[in-house]
Amino acid sequence: MPSEETEVGPSRELVSDVFARDCPSRAAFEDVTAKWASLALLALREGNYRFNALRRRVEGVSEKMLSQTLQALERDGMLTRDVVTAIPPRVEYALTPLGAQVAERLRGLADLLEASAGEVARARASYAGRQSQPPVRT
Amino acid sequence: MPSEETEVGPSRELVSDVFARDCPSRAAFEDVTAKWASLALLALREGNYRFNALRRRVEGVSEKMLSQTLQALERDGMLTRDVVTAIPPRVEYALTPLGAQVAERLRGLADLLEASAGEVARARASYAGRQSQPPVRT
Repeated sequence: MPSEETEVGPSRELVSDVFARDCPSRAAFEDVTAKWASLALLALREGNYRFNALRRRVEGVSEKMLSQTLQALERDGMLTRDVVTAIPPRVEYALTPLGAQVAERLRGLADLLEASAGEVARARASYAGRQSQPPVRT
Repeated sequence: MPSEETEVGPSRELVSDVFARDCPSRAAFEDVTAKWASLALLALREGNYRFNALRRRVEGVSEKMLSQTLQALERDGMLTRDVVTAIPPRVEYALTPLGAQVAERLRGLADLLEASAGEVARARASYAGRQSQPPVRT
């Protein structure tokens, strides 16, 4: 929600909300970054999906987890769930304009991490090396 | 890791990695979007922190969860943990250049959700209204 407080500098003002335990933006932030939610949003950025196709796209998600994830995202207004009249009837999921904006931001993050996968792998190797050094004893 | 496959279009190529269960970028993506990790990265974007100050900033995190979160982020090369020689010695956490880039992307997402908190609240109210409608019976 746009803050109506006296301005105390843009950074401070923006930072304060998402850190506040009771702010709806924190809850929404947690919902869209939840384990399967961000991958589901990234998938729906490619186009609309039916449940089973989405489940195949988001490798490793269980039916139950995907169902709960989609429900939370629908509740937050990130996606719509439409029953398409056909034989047999089918359910299709699509991003809302807000969901699409969120998915864009997540895609930017995913792009960065894909481009940095080598750097992350090197950091992990170096960390493992540091951890496996025997404690110094004399 | 930069792909060395034949190009099949930029979107397809970028999308394929983060969805792959065994890709390090998916693991890194999950680590930085994990429940407390994203808030810790956002906090460290403001400046370096000592453990207890960071714990106060990230409202609601337990000592154990914050400690595990920081360890995973250090392992991925997102932050450094420095022991500062002083009396008493203290431990300070700071973002690496990669961690700072990740935190920028997360800040963009947080900004969007802070600006959309009203929209999310309206979506939730509308969803709750739909759920509480009694089933149609005649």
